Amino acid sequence: MSKVLIFGHQNPDTDAIVAAKAFAYFQSQKGVDAEAVALGEPNMETNFVLNHFDEPAPRVVKTVANETDHVMLVDHNEAQQSVADRDQVTIDAVIDHHKIGNFETAAPLFYRAEPVGCTSTILTEMFNEAKIEIPAKLAGLMLSAIISDTLLLKSPTTTDVDREAVRELAEIADIDVQSYGVAMLKAGTNLAAKSDKELIDGDAKSFDMAGKSVRIGQINTVDLSEVIDRQAGLEKEMAAENAADGYDLFLTLATNVLTSDSELIVTGDSQDVVEKAFNVKLANNRASLPGVVSRKKQVVPPLTDAFEG
Amino acid sequence: MSKVLIFGHQNPDTDAIVAAKAFAYFQSQKGVDAEAVALGEPNMETNFVLNHFDEPAPRVVKTVANETDHVMLVDHNEAQQSVADRDQVTIDAVIDHHKIGNFETAAPLFYRAEPVGCTSTILTEMFNEAKIEIPAKLAGLMLSAIISDTLLLKSPTTTDVDREAVRELAEIADIDVQSYGVAMLKAGTNLAAKSDKELIDGDAKSFDMAGKSVRIGQINTVDLSEVIDRQAGLEKEMAAENAADGYDLFLTLATNVLTSDSELIVTGDSQDVVEKAFNVKLANNRASLPGVVSRKKQVVPPLTDAFEG
Repeated sequence: MSKVLIFGHQNPDTDAIVAAKAFAYFQSQKGVDAEAVALGEPNMETNFVLNHFDEPAPRVVKTVANETDHVMLVDHNEAQQSVADRDQVTIDAVIDHHKIGNFETAAPLFYRAEPVGCTSTILTEMFNEAKIEIPAKLAGLMLSAIISDTLLLKSPTTTDVDREAVRELAEIADIDVQSYGVAMLKAGTNLAAKSDKELIDGDAKSFDMAGKSVRIGQINTVDLSEVIDRQAGLEKEMAAENAADGYDLFLTLATNVLTSDSELIVTGDSQDVVEKAFNVKLANNRASLPGVVSRKKQVVPPLTDAFEG
Repeated sequence: MSKVLIFGHQNPDTDAIVAAKAFAYFQSQKGVDAEAVALGEPNMETNFVLNHFDEPAPRVVKTVANETDHVMLVDHNEAQQSVADRDQVTIDAVIDHHKIGNFETAAPLFYRAEPVGCTSTILTEMFNEAKIEIPAKLAGLMLSAIISDTLLLKSPTTTDVDREAVRELAEIADIDVQSYGVAMLKAGTNLAAKSDKELIDGDAKSFDMAGKSVRIGQINTVDLSEVIDRQAGLEKEMAAENAADGYDLFLTLATNVLTSDSELIVTGDSQDVVEKAFNVKLANNRASLPGVVSRKKQVVPPLTDAFEG
């Protein structure tokens, strides 16, 4: 049998890359000839992790059927997130922590999903169950994946199983979770590498609220002062986009992923509506929104209500 | 939260009933309020097993949404094999050893599938991993499920994991696997309870072979003499059906599920073609086919070739 390729989802994050490496090591300990590959280049955060542990990035593949008949998936199961020619190979195993999306196989397979914060948490359990020792370097990588997926165990997706895995992996890797985790998350948000325009465009989305065109972007950071120090430049780009694209209002939410707090920067009309929506007073076009992290759940609904009310 | 209901597939076999009971016990040890139910009455084999271990049959349900929001599935995953109103409840967990068929959930869940011979084998692993002791009675039930699904470890679906689970469960339950297993499989095939016509009709299917109408049935047994002793009566019914339904040839394959051997009983024309197909000589309308167990793979193709050749 040809070598089994193991990979995570497209646009890989730290868990997609690390879980592939961890499961390939697990399989190799079971005697399976397996190679961890990736469906894309590592992001900034993952590069920080790989550099920290002196671990090479996995080989990037676009297709798999040209080199193997058998694959294993980590951190995803849905076809549209997977390798393009997946229907030409046999899926031997899936390790995942996402919902299952229209998944179908021709034959029985190994499938293990758990509603926990990170695939590397499930793999930690599997190493323990199989009594396979996790090498220190791999423990550091897996710890990084859990820190990444759970935002240092603060995301609402975090479970006790994730917390226990972090405790165990940190001990094996001899890592101070808090200081390493902050450095790692900060590397992933590396705002200094981005222009003001890149920051406000990021993942910005447009909404229609009572006939007004409202643009809302979000910048994740581990240090809100990194954003606030650039407020003037950000406002200039927001105003330029309002003029160019016809937005009535542009909100940029800067979110500290470690403290779950945000600062809101506002450019355009209807600032009184913003103040009403969040029950705040804008000062210098800015307001603090403690505890707000979700655009979808904590920003769009109250703002829509305020416009329509 | 309302009680979680745990069940196997429709037309339940021993594994579908036992795995539900085993997983309900597992969940109760984890503090979950769970009840094992079934989507149908136990078959003859399962009744033998339940009686042997003095275990009540599970409550039969047709729907679940009228009494709970949450379910767990064992020994199946496909919607058409499951409870009718499954789309109205949340699936918290699936433990299965079948291929995954078009499975979709709205949220992450616990899903554990392995390409082994029986769901109760996977559950044995899970008890061990969680360090939960298996009570002797439950071990006997789970052992029965594995014997049932793997035909006493002789089915080609049997893996080393099944063999290890049987060894462990037999020790806990203090059961002699061979003698108990034969009695159990025999209870499931209980031919004495069926008429000659019921035996030949069983799962008989019709095939067109080079313009000839060929009927092929199969009778599973643990003792071929049980079938051979009734050959005259079976032949009479086969001849009657040939006349009534226009079959040119009627083959009944009696298969010893323990030894993987078959006896073929033939009624109708073209007996020379049958002899050519299986390279045998019919004596008293009968021939031995050692090693033949699969109608689909070992009977239909050579017979088709012989008719067409």
